Amino acid sequence: MNKSEVREKATLAKAAATVLNRLDTHQKNEALQLMAQALRQEQELILSANLEDLERGRQQGTVPSLLDRLALNPERINAMAEGLEQIIDLPDPIGDVLEALDRPNGLTIDKVRVPLGVIGIIYEARPNVTVDAAGLCLKTGNAVVLRGGSSAISSNRQIIEVLHRALALSAIPVDALQIIEDPNRASVDEMLKLKGLLDVVIPRGGRSLIQNVVENATVPVIETGAGVCHTYLDASADPTMASDISLNAKVQRPSVCNSMETLIVHQDFAARHLASLAEQFKESNVEIRGCEETLAIIPWATLATEEDYSTEYNDYILNVQIVNTIQEALDHIAQHGTQHSECIVTEDKDQAALFIQEVDAAAVYHNASTRFTDGFEFGFGAEIGISTQKLHARGPMGLPSLTSTKYRIYGNGQIRR
Amino acid sequence: MNKSEVREKATLAKAAATVLNRLDTHQKNEALQLMAQALRQEQELILSANLEDLERGRQQGTVPSLLDRLALNPERINAMAEGLEQIIDLPDPIGDVLEALDRPNGLTIDKVRVPLGVIGIIYEARPNVTVDAAGLCLKTGNAVVLRGGSSAISSNRQIIEVLHRALALSAIPVDALQIIEDPNRASVDEMLKLKGLLDVVIPRGGRSLIQNVVENATVPVIETGAGVCHTYLDASADPTMASDISLNAKVQRPSVCNSMETLIVHQDFAARHLASLAEQFKESNVEIRGCEETLAIIPWATLATEEDYSTEYNDYILNVQIVNTIQEALDHIAQHGTQHSECIVTEDKDQAALFIQEVDAAAVYHNASTRFTDGFEFGFGAEIGISTQKLHARGPMGLPSLTSTKYRIYGNGQIRR
Repeated sequence: MNKSEVREKATLAKAAATVLNRLDTHQKNEALQLMAQALRQEQELILSANLEDLERGRQQGTVPSLLDRLALNPERINAMAEGLEQIIDLPDPIGDVLEALDRPNGLTIDKVRVPLGVIGIIYEARPNVTVDAAGLCLKTGNAVVLRGGSSAISSNRQIIEVLHRALALSAIPVDALQIIEDPNRASVDEMLKLKGLLDVVIPRGGRSLIQNVVENATVPVIETGAGVCHTYLDASADPTMASDISLNAKVQRPSVCNSMETLIVHQDFAARHLASLAEQFKESNVEIRGCEETLAIIPWATLATEEDYSTEYNDYILNVQIVNTIQEALDHIAQHGTQHSECIVTEDKDQAALFIQEVDAAAVYHNASTRFTDGFEFGFGAEIGISTQKLHARGPMGLPSLTSTKYRIYGNGQIRR
Repeated sequence: MNKSEVREKATLAKAAATVLNRLDTHQKNEALQLMAQALRQEQELILSANLEDLERGRQQGTVPSLLDRLALNPERINAMAEGLEQIIDLPDPIGDVLEALDRPNGLTIDKVRVPLGVIGIIYEARPNVTVDAAGLCLKTGNAVVLRGGSSAISSNRQIIEVLHRALALSAIPVDALQIIEDPNRASVDEMLKLKGLLDVVIPRGGRSLIQNVVENATVPVIETGAGVCHTYLDASADPTMASDISLNAKVQRPSVCNSMETLIVHQDFAARHLASLAEQFKESNVEIRGCEETLAIIPWATLATEEDYSTEYNDYILNVQIVNTIQEALDHIAQHGTQHSECIVTEDKDQAALFIQEVDAAAVYHNASTRFTDGFEFGFGAEIGISTQKLHARGPMGLPSLTSTKYRIYGNGQIRR
């Protein structure tokens, strides 16, 4: 039987991971620098491959916003190269000793950070993810098998070819970086079952992509992304801060996972300030869907459905829910939230402490916009995604999230009695 | 539609987890102490329920070794209570601050340990796991849904009844501790799909139980257990240490996951010492299966198959493989190992360093028995199992493995530009 493309490339990646595991930080950084140079030098090749993707997209009637995400230009390619250079500057977590134990029987035990091995990344259109994911995985000593969206296949193939030429001049084996070219969904499904070859799969994309991965993978998954985030304006919220934070959370960049989908408002605050706040949302072209009480204050709003409250719009649409107590706000978040980012705006420290204690989410805010849930904003320097699961990593994932650990035990003949 | 037992109990557990999350260490420890007292006071009830299980087992022709694992007596019940008291003495990881970041924009961020939420444990016969798992989960603020083997159902049901009476006197809600009584495999399968109700499933048991969980779960899994562990006797191994360690790894307790299944021997060591070492194994009633070279030195050994080299015997059977180089030993381990515990016996520090660097396993030993891979032996005071996966936790899992984290972000009106 012939090996499939997926199995063949994962097998090569696994063999390369063993070599990669032996490299020191300097060798890995050198390779990243060569990759950055190659991207800049070969930008014409990449841009012309990108034109193929754009042309095919136009023929297939792809909407302009998606074409824009797909489009490359010299600035965007330079930004990819700069991204790699930023990763070079980050501390290498591999080899860090996290625990050291001396046992009474004379055994010396330590726990050291090691690469995960081979990481599978499944993502959608944007070609910059190709470079970003490659850089983060290789820096942490992991081989990587990429499976990008078929709409960017020409760009991705060309980017990988350029990066492979750079790796050929480095200590990192070329095989450590693989891209699956098969555009069929079956190649994704095959990746999800590659236990023994892939150590983890990380999906990056919309809800249906992530759901498919979570439901079908036998390989361990780090779930990322989907964010139905709430901002709760408490009775004692400062009105200016409340409007600044809630407008920022909704409109500064509505298309991302840490933007707000639902504004929860205490009835006392709503009675005094919701009408004027709604005008500000209206000026920003935000459509409002709300509960019955909301409609009494904002006549131009429409009635929100249960489904609306669980929808990640990623758009200029906002749900508004008026509550009588903070407990109702907590219950609403527990029911509709995706455990991503949640915020309370209040001047009451006890209410803030209660909210932060009770809300079960990766990031819980007091008096700041949920838009800060981001590896760069947290000071990690880069991120492979935002984990919305509770195991292994939660919230923005920096380099340590791409590592495992190993116990090393040193003895002089100890046996167990 | 009526809710199934599994869904109903998981729903109750989830609601209880919210309450449990608010309790302090003192309240949780008090509950554990009441549980320990109740076990001692009600031991007659538990013993008579256990007799039912034993009687049913005998009628069904259960083998004596399994009946022994199932059997309780006053000493074993007291040991369960002592286990709970040991958990009381362990530090509570919940609330520990793992990182603290002050950002240039004035945001204060910290990362705090929180409970996972609701933990599902799927295990086989031994009733002591029921108490142990309950204690570890509750101490870390998690609700727990237990699904034990059907052969111990009477004992487990009675134990839970006793523990529930103790919890009723404590701050921990009774609903935080659930046991699934449905003996059908369908109840396990249902647990594996309870995304949104269970935060993690931990299987404890043999290979087929674990395989079923890993292959069918959509809930995140922490894989535990299966151990095909190797001991490699290098050319320069001290002969006495080599025999002490390899005999201990095989025969001190062959039925457990950290015992040795395959002895790999460098040809130089084999030529000088393997014959006498084999005699020692023979005296311990260990059957040997080996490669062709092994048979030339140990005539009474039988030829090992490829399958033998990948089998966790948990029995007095040992594979022996003679190699020409350490690289052959590393390749054999990479091919047949389960990334659990691996050991090199050598007097050569460079070979030891190479082995420890190259072997991809939870625990890698130099000159000590693999039998030490155990939460108690590592000084954790207790363990919920030994993780053989690379995500979240690897190796013996102490209390911190039963936690997640949450980022708390404190601002004074920060918005993203």
